[in-house]
Amino acid sequence: MGTTQLESVQEPKYWHLKTVLNDALDSEFEVGEILPNERDLAARFGVARATLRQALEQLELEGRLQRRRGVGTTVAPPRMGVAVGPTTGTWPGAGRDAWSTVGCAEAVAPAAIGALLGTAAEEAVHTIRRERVMRGQPVATELLYVPPASVPGLSELLTPASHAAAVLRELHHLHLEGEDRAVELGSAGAADAKQLDRLPGAPVLVVTTRYFVAGAVAAASVATYRADTCRLTFGDSGALEVTHHQPEARQAS
Amino acid sequence: MGTTQLESVQEPKYWHLKTVLNDALDSEFEVGEILPNERDLAARFGVARATLRQALEQLELEGRLQRRRGVGTTVAPPRMGVAVGPTTGTWPGAGRDAWSTVGCAEAVAPAAIGALLGTAAEEAVHTIRRERVMRGQPVATELLYVPPASVPGLSELLTPASHAAAVLRELHHLHLEGEDRAVELGSAGAADAKQLDRLPGAPVLVVTTRYFVAGAVAAASVATYRADTCRLTFGDSGALEVTHHQPEARQAS
Repeated sequence: MGTTQLESVQEPKYWHLKTVLNDALDSEFEVGEILPNERDLAARFGVARATLRQALEQLELEGRLQRRRGVGTTVAPPRMGVAVGPTTGTWPGAGRDAWSTVGCAEAVAPAAIGALLGTAAEEAVHTIRRERVMRGQPVATELLYVPPASVPGLSELLTPASHAAAVLRELHHLHLEGEDRAVELGSAGAADAKQLDRLPGAPVLVVTTRYFVAGAVAAASVATYRADTCRLTFGDSGALEVTHHQPEARQAS
Repeated sequence: MGTTQLESVQEPKYWHLKTVLNDALDSEFEVGEILPNERDLAARFGVARATLRQALEQLELEGRLQRRRGVGTTVAPPRMGVAVGPTTGTWPGAGRDAWSTVGCAEAVAPAAIGALLGTAAEEAVHTIRRERVMRGQPVATELLYVPPASVPGLSELLTPASHAAAVLRELHHLHLEGEDRAVELGSAGAADAKQLDRLPGAPVLVVTTRYFVAGAVAAASVATYRADTCRLTFGDSGALEVTHHQPEARQAS
């Protein structure tokens, strides 16, 4: 049977080291175990500290290692499969929603969100912060934006405690036609980072969702998932049971 | 109407600088324009080089800036919305597929892919490399893995040129029950990086797809999208028309 060569590319030094380290993590270390310090590791593998550091950074990006202040570098557990929009046509807060509300305010949305929602420049919208916890860890934080025009039946006599619940209840009275989502790479702002137990600037997967009612966007949300611990899953066949670390799987043979 | 405070968090110095730089990019620079060098920028904003560099790295992660060797740091165009699985129940290579085949081989799949496919340890599978180009730029590269058992009707007399097309044609004869996907952060391996015109280690969004036939996984693919230029879109309401840069939109007010 015929074959054509897929590719043959020179790999940089730290990339090779990364592969070697990856194998060492599999064979010699347990999840949660603390790695030796950089000097010892560099000596063991016969590389410069800078090369080692590059390889460690790659492994952190790929979710293999975790760096925690005051602890050091540890072997990360496999990423968690987190279902994103497992059921369509469902409002936030409905039924088996994985999110819980942590705050609510009326505030002017960022310009880009205002553009999505079609609100006026300085118009305040209901802004609900929610969080998602899995296995005792915060995995995502979300801001849900609802223009007052989408929930006209809302009482004017809301207490801080009842605000978010009342907005969600009003949303559920609307006929949700559909939703769409976009996923992109971002970095955690200070507020998100605090919610996620990360440092500001940590890489996150940003999921923007639009909710459609009567042909228009009735609400929008921006959810920020920890990129180090999460694998976002889509589709109705259940979470992908990938027990490995993806980047390895991408190596062409 | 009642409000509860959402949060109030101290932002680090480079984060504030990032916000200031972001505004300067909007007001003073055009897409594609080259930024002044680090020394001049640090002087202008009255910060240390290290702080500046952190802010630039954040802006690069968020897709606002591009660093290109031999060119310098330029203002990035808005990310492209790239539809991922816009239609379900469609085999790769069908109809209006955005991907084109660049190579094909019979090769042993990485262990994790073998586990997904349920193939034997050293069993070779059809491995098709495909690429996706938008606006003249490579945005994604993919390896599609098809076990021989999924395409038993395949001719034994394939030429290198006909291999990929024959595998895809056989797939299209199977009744595709459904597919699911997972999205996670990764770093580009050397082969992927070359296809994507990036340096090895560049951050990528890795999309793993399983294709189900008769209750089992008949094929799987691992697609690697450039995280700097792509925003992955899901859902049938068309691509999200977000013209801004997401991370700004995440700031709670």
